[in-house]
Amino acid sequence: MSQLPSFARVLIDLDERSYPILIGHDLLGDSRTYADLPGADSALVVSNTVVDSLYGEQLGLALAPHYRNVYRVVLPDGEQHKNWQTLNLIFDALLQNRCDRKTVLFALGGGVVGDMTGFAAASFMRGVPFVQVPTTLLAQVDSSVGGKTAINHPLGKNMIGAFYQPRLVVCDAGVFSTLPQRELSAGLAEVIKYGPIADMAFLDWVDANLPQLLARDPVALAFAVKRSCEIKAQVVGQDEREGGLRAILNFGHTFGHAIENGMGYGHWLHGEAVGCGMVMAAQLSLRLGLVDAAFVQRLTGLIERAGLPVVAPQLPPSANDPALSESNADRYLSLMRVDKKAQAGTIQFIVIDRPGSAQLCTAPDDLVRQVVETCCG
Amino acid sequence: MSQLPSFARVLIDLDERSYPILIGHDLLGDSRTYADLPGADSALVVSNTVVDSLYGEQLGLALAPHYRNVYRVVLPDGEQHKNWQTLNLIFDALLQNRCDRKTVLFALGGGVVGDMTGFAAASFMRGVPFVQVPTTLLAQVDSSVGGKTAINHPLGKNMIGAFYQPRLVVCDAGVFSTLPQRELSAGLAEVIKYGPIADMAFLDWVDANLPQLLARDPVALAFAVKRSCEIKAQVVGQDEREGGLRAILNFGHTFGHAIENGMGYGHWLHGEAVGCGMVMAAQLSLRLGLVDAAFVQRLTGLIERAGLPVVAPQLPPSANDPALSESNADRYLSLMRVDKKAQAGTIQFIVIDRPGSAQLCTAPDDLVRQVVETCCG
Repeated sequence: MSQLPSFARVLIDLDERSYPILIGHDLLGDSRTYADLPGADSALVVSNTVVDSLYGEQLGLALAPHYRNVYRVVLPDGEQHKNWQTLNLIFDALLQNRCDRKTVLFALGGGVVGDMTGFAAASFMRGVPFVQVPTTLLAQVDSSVGGKTAINHPLGKNMIGAFYQPRLVVCDAGVFSTLPQRELSAGLAEVIKYGPIADMAFLDWVDANLPQLLARDPVALAFAVKRSCEIKAQVVGQDEREGGLRAILNFGHTFGHAIENGMGYGHWLHGEAVGCGMVMAAQLSLRLGLVDAAFVQRLTGLIERAGLPVVAPQLPPSANDPALSESNADRYLSLMRVDKKAQAGTIQFIVIDRPGSAQLCTAPDDLVRQVVETCCG
Repeated sequence: MSQLPSFARVLIDLDERSYPILIGHDLLGDSRTYADLPGADSALVVSNTVVDSLYGEQLGLALAPHYRNVYRVVLPDGEQHKNWQTLNLIFDALLQNRCDRKTVLFALGGGVVGDMTGFAAASFMRGVPFVQVPTTLLAQVDSSVGGKTAINHPLGKNMIGAFYQPRLVVCDAGVFSTLPQRELSAGLAEVIKYGPIADMAFLDWVDANLPQLLARDPVALAFAVKRSCEIKAQVVGQDEREGGLRAILNFGHTFGHAIENGMGYGHWLHGEAVGCGMVMAAQLSLRLGLVDAAFVQRLTGLIERAGLPVVAPQLPPSANDPALSESNADRYLSLMRVDKKAQAGTIQFIVIDRPGSAQLCTAPDDLVRQVVETCCG
């Protein structure tokens, strides 16, 4: 068999759950990409309406030599569909097609498709193998790697899920040609994230190469994916189930989840909320005396130039608050108290303790209110 | 602290996921039973309408010294409620009460409550600790031990779930005093099961002590629970995720699941379907030349004396078969092809290869049809 086109390989090292991330060009549609997966009679490709029409057939053809039956299920597109009803469409497809314990699931899409397919794979017959084929920048640099799978609950994002590792992640740089600009920017939020929490040299590189990244230079994007995956691999290899260290990957996510949830899923893209959430978390770090104003300014400027919002939204009041008694800052606090990282109602923030390093901490409510008020402009 | 009342302790040995099963009297309502669990701010007791009214308050009081907040959620009773809608009541209670990643779930009830609480614990925030407090014989000897958790899908039983181990199983023999006779018999099906698959001496003991077991002699029942758990612990310790050996615990379940699913969940108790399913699996073993007629007759007689059905039901036709073209035997075959053990549509049966030993095997459809026809009387 001839060689695959040139690509980088990043290993997620988790003993018997280890797996490779392949990063390169023309991987998605090449049947050799999938040659080392466990044998099975059938495969199910899970996608959404948009991505299926772009890449569904191509992936199906690449899988055809490996499986007697390749089924496809197409989910509605968007974070607002990341719920049980949509998840059940995957189970329906699996059972109607008489799939079995060896059937391999392929997540072809962005973070929503990846998270749902992963949770479906974790739960179907108590666990079947799955492969991530991320088609957004955000999914390639973050959500498809590390085995976090979940669906949302009306009372909180990603509240129901599993730690369940894929067997393979295929990051094909070719998919960026079809990615809407807004999604590209959303992905850059997670790329930018890796700098302040782990590698300021990478932040410098992103800063210097932002024009190329925004212009979809394939070499620049492939490098950004590779370096992001390397950092994530290092963190996840040390703390698969988020006992501690792994939480730093959630920099910007505590505030970000409050924005996503408070605005209603689907209004802000996850990456947009994380971008703005990083500005808020940096402001909190500043107020805790951990970083200086120049650092916050630099990070905020970079996020803004990446095409992301840096002014936090006024959140609509809770449906349980018809008297509108809760201020905007208190609404943020209420939403953050049901974040997964909260314990006994105490919110855990990820702050930058010095440029290139992050940690978990708590903060007085008044300080958080100040941050919300400052960031809401 | 004074000693707990006398009890037996069976260890499920799974490295860092190991946990004890405590078997004895007056354990459920004793706060010392729960002293070694991981610390948390809150606990949620999951039960059903029947069991909550019997034991909910008692367990809540026993937990009060350990948790600042003990919440209770009461599910509707019965296998027909083992679905996503009911599972979601647990998530709602957890989120409405602002439970967190350390919150401990307690499954107070039979197999349905245990399976659903376990799956909720596996999935809530990607995993929180849970404890099994089984209140039926079936749950004490089988479903609460070993970490299989699941809900049903309209197309198949236990299709959606996780392998997720509890931290503790509390088998209090006191609960048998309130157990309906039909449930007691259903539990005996799983007790009887351990003999033919693993320990003929235990089958002899059950045979000799059946009158005491049916009369709820607490010493006899506690011994039956202990020996059943020991056998299950041995099997699960060798094969946690059912790569092979563990499948023998499903003796009677391939046919049994077809009965449960075909009749509609809730019509036959799980243990009743397993009892009848064991008769069918024994008949299949006979037709495969593995055991003799005397063995089948002895097992069938014991199942019948335990108060369980030994004549298989005629299954109602599938809703997809308005022309009634499928025979009863073919209906069984169709339902068994979506069993979790089936691979590429080939049904895997567990047969007795000699008394006290079981194995997985396939069988020609015609032979299976003969078994169905014989057993349907």
